[in-house]
Amino acid sequence: MAEQDFPESEFVTRTAQAQRAMRDKRLDALFFTTEAEIRYFTGFRTLFWQSPTRPWFLVVPVSGKPIAVIPQIGAHLMASTWIEDIRTFSAPHPTDDGISLLADVLNPYARIGMPMGRESSLRMPLADFDTLKSWLNGTEFVNASDLVQSVRMVKTEAEINVLREICGIGSAAFAEAGQLFHEDQSLKEAFCAFKIELLQQGADDVPYLVGGAGQGGYGDVISPPSDQILKAGDILMLDTGATKDGYFCDFDRNFALGFASDAAKEAHGKLVAAVSAAAAIARPGKTCSDLYHAMAGTLGQSDGDVGRLGHGLGMQLTESPSITDFDTTILSENMVLTLEPSIDLGDGKMMVHEENIVIRDGEPEFLSVRAEPDIPVIHS
Amino acid sequence: MAEQDFPESEFVTRTAQAQRAMRDKRLDALFFTTEAEIRYFTGFRTLFWQSPTRPWFLVVPVSGKPIAVIPQIGAHLMASTWIEDIRTFSAPHPTDDGISLLADVLNPYARIGMPMGRESSLRMPLADFDTLKSWLNGTEFVNASDLVQSVRMVKTEAEINVLREICGIGSAAFAEAGQLFHEDQSLKEAFCAFKIELLQQGADDVPYLVGGAGQGGYGDVISPPSDQILKAGDILMLDTGATKDGYFCDFDRNFALGFASDAAKEAHGKLVAAVSAAAAIARPGKTCSDLYHAMAGTLGQSDGDVGRLGHGLGMQLTESPSITDFDTTILSENMVLTLEPSIDLGDGKMMVHEENIVIRDGEPEFLSVRAEPDIPVIHS
Repeated sequence: MAEQDFPESEFVTRTAQAQRAMRDKRLDALFFTTEAEIRYFTGFRTLFWQSPTRPWFLVVPVSGKPIAVIPQIGAHLMASTWIEDIRTFSAPHPTDDGISLLADVLNPYARIGMPMGRESSLRMPLADFDTLKSWLNGTEFVNASDLVQSVRMVKTEAEINVLREICGIGSAAFAEAGQLFHEDQSLKEAFCAFKIELLQQGADDVPYLVGGAGQGGYGDVISPPSDQILKAGDILMLDTGATKDGYFCDFDRNFALGFASDAAKEAHGKLVAAVSAAAAIARPGKTCSDLYHAMAGTLGQSDGDVGRLGHGLGMQLTESPSITDFDTTILSENMVLTLEPSIDLGDGKMMVHEENIVIRDGEPEFLSVRAEPDIPVIHS
Repeated sequence: MAEQDFPESEFVTRTAQAQRAMRDKRLDALFFTTEAEIRYFTGFRTLFWQSPTRPWFLVVPVSGKPIAVIPQIGAHLMASTWIEDIRTFSAPHPTDDGISLLADVLNPYARIGMPMGRESSLRMPLADFDTLKSWLNGTEFVNASDLVQSVRMVKTEAEINVLREICGIGSAAFAEAGQLFHEDQSLKEAFCAFKIELLQQGADDVPYLVGGAGQGGYGDVISPPSDQILKAGDILMLDTGATKDGYFCDFDRNFALGFASDAAKEAHGKLVAAVSAAAAIARPGKTCSDLYHAMAGTLGQSDGDVGRLGHGLGMQLTESPSITDFDTTILSENMVLTLEPSIDLGDGKMMVHEENIVIRDGEPEFLSVRAEPDIPVIHS
């Protein structure tokens, strides 16, 4: 049997929390089609989600254990989790990819919640969802995004332990930057070297590694690496989402090749100061909007093209809440967040910086080893 | 500007093919929300899709270039593609994550196709899709999964060149198995070593690496690696989906640690023979069902828990068509497929084998370096 990332008690707790919220909202069940939600309530972890062919379904009733309706190929792995009621279909199927089985499970429920709001998607064919609704004539599907996000955004200590581990791995990999990155290296080579370092430091996978480089700043923060050659005066930034046991770190580091311009030094110092300003007020009871204003005030700028100054972190690279002007989510203990200030330097150049923290009763805990205000300079 | 994976002519061709099919189906536009489809028509490639926060939209009208409706954070990268009409919104947005902009673009069209069938998902909030439909009162959304799949499943030579490269990288990595895998190693260590080898051989990423090990066979083929220690008599299987320029290889290899049982030897020979039987008839004009029956006949078994004996391959780890009894898709030149026979060995054990081919006018081209009928034995 596959090893479990968490003891059964973890899933009992998560499910009980969701069920309490379901009772408040008069929901009879929750219905999920997406990887993060299905793993959150079951522990079912596999990279097989890379294949879009087969749908996977989970139903969390208002009382009792979740029920899995899944392709036969997943039965062995799902049986290693705490889930007992596992209904399987042969998939791909010529006419019925689990919809009749799913309708049987959902049929007793009048009011079913599912994620339909911000950050959600429907990982099943829309035509099959329409068929399902027609077979469940009279069933009401309501938006449960807020409910699910409010449960998921407060992490258990077990989750925080995994997040601390992967952030430690990311920090250890960045600590090797002086050995990994150098002038006359292509961005592709730099990225490859960093991915290998992350794996050697203990990451399971590196699903996310983006960044850029340029004289005194870079143009955007979501591009894959190119054959561009690093040269003196470049600011190199790598932003990584590496995983351990299915949980992400998400932070970046900036390095100056050879020397840093005064403008780059100043920007880096300001980015680190913005993180400090947010950390100084990041306490239970404050809001995401408060953190946003603490950072924007230090930067003397709004969020620019990025659209926010941080976000939730956990089983996904980005989770709710968002650190924006308009997100009034109240911080509570054990939320895990990224603080991600960015500066527009003009001329199509920018710099970003990111750290990962846990909201605690008192000062936040940094999961990433904090960057110093002085931008590190790599001498070839 | 970011480097492009393909010249503009590639996207002109892809778009023209889709537009011809749209005219046949009397569609005014195609509407996409998912990574593979948006990249297929634009060349926009980023790992940023790991973040579920922001929706991305593409509209392909029946004539003219596609129109992108995307978050501001993607504007710089999208501007490096052949797309000219790029409309951006600040995201995340408190009330309107691009839906009013999108409605403006879609408003002129009466009949809009979108993927709603097998293998599709809706990568935007269902609530936003409902809002969009209510604003486009009278617009008909129809299922265009078949149309999009039929265009995407026949690859251009440019796509095949990239697929040949990543399959070559996978083959080169597997050729090092004798140095990478050994008795007394944990599965986690073996997987990590193989991922690093793939990156060193030139893979951009390794989004998919699953497998298993056990005495004379393994229990399932989708589990992540555990701390299980490899020992003599184990059959070790690794199945990798590594990527280059956004295209996947997808094949596996089996290895015997120390020695192979007669049953394992026989099963391996039969799996390789099944691939040969399919390759012997894989010609334009044959069907997926024909390939299925060629393999199942050699194996003396159906597809068991896996549900099929291969599938399409390209920008996704698995694409249509499916090599099943019921998939009557007619093979045509330049389709890229995996041949993936599996054998149920009883006692909860199985073995799988997989190769990647291109359908050609004549014998298929193997993109993966074929496995020999004799299972390779690794001596510590």
